[in-house]
Amino acid sequence: MPHIQLNNDAPGIRGLAMYRPDTGQHLYNLAQALLRAGSPDSTLTNAERELIAAYVSSQNCTDFCRNSHAAAARYLYGEQRDLVDATLTAPESAPISPKLRALLTIAERVATDARTVSDDVVAAARAEGAADGDIHDTVQIAASFCMFNRYVDGLATLTPTDPAAYDAMGERMGTLGYITPESATR
Amino acid sequence: MPHIQLNNDAPGIRGLAMYRPDTGQHLYNLAQALLRAGSPDSTLTNAERELIAAYVSSQNCTDFCRNSHAAAARYLYGEQRDLVDATLTAPESAPISPKLRALLTIAERVATDARTVSDDVVAAARAEGAADGDIHDTVQIAASFCMFNRYVDGLATLTPTDPAAYDAMGERMGTLGYITPESATR
Repeated sequence: MPHIQLNNDAPGIRGLAMYRPDTGQHLYNLAQALLRAGSPDSTLTNAERELIAAYVSSQNCTDFCRNSHAAAARYLYGEQRDLVDATLTAPESAPISPKLRALLTIAERVATDARTVSDDVVAAARAEGAADGDIHDTVQIAASFCMFNRYVDGLATLTPTDPAAYDAMGERMGTLGYITPESATR
Repeated sequence: MPHIQLNNDAPGIRGLAMYRPDTGQHLYNLAQALLRAGSPDSTLTNAERELIAAYVSSQNCTDFCRNSHAAAARYLYGEQRDLVDATLTAPESAPISPKLRALLTIAERVATDARTVSDDVVAAARAEGAADGDIHDTVQIAASFCMFNRYVDGLATLTPTDPAAYDAMGERMGTLGYITPESATR
């Protein structure tokens, strides 16, 4: 049960954005800009962005964000969907590009202690083809999910346990992107 | 030196918002809504909000955010400015209200592992007069600074060492609030 009275029964970040739409709108706008647009010189796909988000949420043990963004990544990867769970379980052996693997190392360091993002791990990502925009977006996605994860966990928001609920969320996120609960119900 | 070419020499989050204004604008809007407006039923002052931001940044060892928000808190506390450094050094004995002290405990748990924000620490804050909005805003400020801190540290942005630079930032944040670098230079 959430620590405060949210006056709605929406799960995760959605319930928080309905409780507090004046900050919620900026969170949705940020997610849309980061997960669906990206830096001009970044070639990260929307599926890869969702996978980074799910990976960081998995590191932070935030089930709601992990499950919903993993579902969005599966939807966006289509026939390659199996690589999502493979990456969340064992990134070192998952069938992803060396560039994405190097960026996940950066994402993991951001989540654990961002001061440990060293020149070496940045150089390793560049050696696999990462541009400045890829490195920027990886750090910002990882940092943002350290916020979303803590916001959801710190207020003990509703976390569905039925996988089908996340499949539906993943399809919505994969098709509509991040639109505020208010816009969605208008 | 920053890990990527930002094409500007602005410090901290400001340099990042100039590099990537399409996400930066949402970060500034979020900071303004959280640190200068707040939930309808929250009585946290702007000074207290800045102190929570500085406290979390101090826990995360992010000097830029710690120093700039501590400077904003000092500016806003005015004659009571000495309590800012007392709180950052030893919150348990600082001359702050029992309610704010209880909220700082929640903020610290959000920063460390938000799943440890227990019914007990929430009840302790309520016993000192914290409303739902105070608890919400504390969790969201703490979560947001876990993002800002990681974004700044993960890209190794410029961190001024001259205290006078932070005094100037604190006065600007205390008077103008959070306006994007683009708006500020127009």
